[in-house]
Amino acid sequence: MALPRAIRRSNPITLILAAVLAIGFLVFVFSPSTDGAALATARRKLQSAAAHPLSPPTAPFVKVDASNEKKPPPVVHYHLNNVTTSADSIANEETVLILTPLSRFYPQYWSNILELSYPHSLIALGFITPKTREGNQATAALQAAIAETQSGPEAKRFASITILRQDFDPPIASQDEKERHKLSNQAARRRSMAKARNSLLFTTMGPTTSWILWLDADIVESKPTLIQDLSSHDKPVVVANCMQRYTDDKGKKAVRAYDFNSWQDSEQAAQIASTMGNDDILVEGYGEMATYRLLMSGTADHTESRDQRAIMPLDGVGGTALLVKAEVHRDGAMFPPFAFYHLMETEGFAKMARRLGWACWGLPNYFVSTPYTCNISKSLHIRMY
Amino acid sequence: MALPRAIRRSNPITLILAAVLAIGFLVFVFSPSTDGAALATARRKLQSAAAHPLSPPTAPFVKVDASNEKKPPPVVHYHLNNVTTSADSIANEETVLILTPLSRFYPQYWSNILELSYPHSLIALGFITPKTREGNQATAALQAAIAETQSGPEAKRFASITILRQDFDPPIASQDEKERHKLSNQAARRRSMAKARNSLLFTTMGPTTSWILWLDADIVESKPTLIQDLSSHDKPVVVANCMQRYTDDKGKKAVRAYDFNSWQDSEQAAQIASTMGNDDILVEGYGEMATYRLLMSGTADHTESRDQRAIMPLDGVGGTALLVKAEVHRDGAMFPPFAFYHLMETEGFAKMARRLGWACWGLPNYFVSTPYTCNISKSLHIRMY
Repeated sequence: MALPRAIRRSNPITLILAAVLAIGFLVFVFSPSTDGAALATARRKLQSAAAHPLSPPTAPFVKVDASNEKKPPPVVHYHLNNVTTSADSIANEETVLILTPLSRFYPQYWSNILELSYPHSLIALGFITPKTREGNQATAALQAAIAETQSGPEAKRFASITILRQDFDPPIASQDEKERHKLSNQAARRRSMAKARNSLLFTTMGPTTSWILWLDADIVESKPTLIQDLSSHDKPVVVANCMQRYTDDKGKKAVRAYDFNSWQDSEQAAQIASTMGNDDILVEGYGEMATYRLLMSGTADHTESRDQRAIMPLDGVGGTALLVKAEVHRDGAMFPPFAFYHLMETEGFAKMARRLGWACWGLPNYFVSTPYTCNISKSLHIRMY
Repeated sequence: MALPRAIRRSNPITLILAAVLAIGFLVFVFSPSTDGAALATARRKLQSAAAHPLSPPTAPFVKVDASNEKKPPPVVHYHLNNVTTSADSIANEETVLILTPLSRFYPQYWSNILELSYPHSLIALGFITPKTREGNQATAALQAAIAETQSGPEAKRFASITILRQDFDPPIASQDEKERHKLSNQAARRRSMAKARNSLLFTTMGPTTSWILWLDADIVESKPTLIQDLSSHDKPVVVANCMQRYTDDKGKKAVRAYDFNSWQDSEQAAQIASTMGNDDILVEGYGEMATYRLLMSGTADHTESRDQRAIMPLDGVGGTALLVKAEVHRDGAMFPPFAFYHLMETEGFAKMARRLGWACWGLPNYFVSTPYTCNISKSLHIRMY
């Protein structure tokens, strides 16, 4: 190839000058930072580095000195007052942290949250998985799903995703539904679940988080507008009504109540509690312990024309699809892994929120659901409504 | 100024080529990233952006596509098991989050933490300041100190610093010691303080945090080895003994006990509690309510030859200089802003930690102190030891 006439004709010094500039140009184009050497040595640190010297201390800050500035870093304030939680959550760009304790990965869970119409750039996800074989499998499957989504279309990508591996052993090895729901296993199971929820909450909530959506790993069906619908009620704590799709004895597909933790208290429950020891807990949904609490699940209207915005005050809440204003958690409301007024986990959380002055609410006619199951556990049938 | 002979002689097209390259070069030199246009539009987002797509969701991730790579982001796991809390905290590179509710800024507080010999690169700081005039002043002073330190010598810089502004009003306007310590103000004051601690804790603790050091804003004197000394005991919860330097009636400088929240329980206290209503709290250090608990402050050996490693189990702890393994908080232990077994705030935290199976300890002969004061509050003298 012949050089352009103008270049062929020019002085060698001019060419060298141009070449030096061009090389300098290319060095800048192809180096991710002007401080390449420092970057290389600090790569391990950078892996988990915070973006800003004053970022929340979830990770050490490592200065990438791209502009060679030596000015002091600006001070970042988080005005908790300005982190709104309002009925118009999208317009106010309110960030939502979806937290899911995950011991089994349902692909439908992932495809369901992918369909959420709330701007994904405002959604952060947090998972905690147990240190078991099942937990490892779930983590691997989750990772694959994340890798695909986060490298896919920009609009579907979530703002951030955290996976925590539990640092304590689960009390029951089996995730089999029959085993999980045994009354005798409830206290140990709920203690473990409460600790998992707390670990997840304490380590992922940041100063800019507006809402926390607790979403169980087996919620595979919800409206794409789940977040908008729940937050539009502008309540400190609000829970959807979780249903389970199943096949009945005649092979017919049906829906039944699945959430026994969302209830209004009863005098009978208070009486049972008054006879209990400090560490005993009241558990709902078991014939052995009839509390006669008003279960939200029992008040559901299953017709097509139901009022999905119907709302009722609750004393206990379940965690299947539970939206909480971050300020409720910031005040200290967590999931007691011990008997708190004879309640534990999400039910204890509701009690704690109420002790802090926050009211809890339920949406009896707003449904989310778990996958179809054919494995009907008799114990769940003892007292449905 | 005359142009060099070589340039003067060269063809205009060559000069234009060189100029284009030079301008390109300069654009890259002075832009912080290769993606200048995207950066400009996303500046607001970047302000609080996380460094990594999978960073803990304290801030949205904004991709700065410096290397033009379109590969999926790696999945970052936080193995909570690998976040050790051990007696040899420095060797294990354990991160410490120092949390301080701050309503008054003492320059000596700052100079004291600057002298901490624990590697500052492993220390993150978190502050919460009230929305009052005093809080504004404290915040401004704190910012000035931060700006100086974080632009000063590398070794003194902290890994990260967060300032939160409280989103609720303090119950008592005055920070005057006499007013603060009035028995009638204790419940409201401690409720507010508990909420502040919880907000700070829930929003700043990350998945890589090993230890939380609760350090009150008026702790102006401690050994530079404070963190190593406390963590070397390898206890879930351990508190130093906080002293107050003061000038006595005869103008003589002296030291007296300041922490009335670190104690072993007594039968008398249990008896008082049993007669109390659900929302009543037991408060220590007031003649009106003699609990006869064993106060750690009263067991202190003030001689020079004292065993500073002496350790005692505690039922209640103070928050002046309190080191907590992050896993204790992760399990759910927070500062109850309501009566929890008739205890609140740090004392309630100790009870909650114990309910979760974590023991609490105190170091009666290991002192930290508040500033000299001449403003002796009589009520503090009622029962010192």
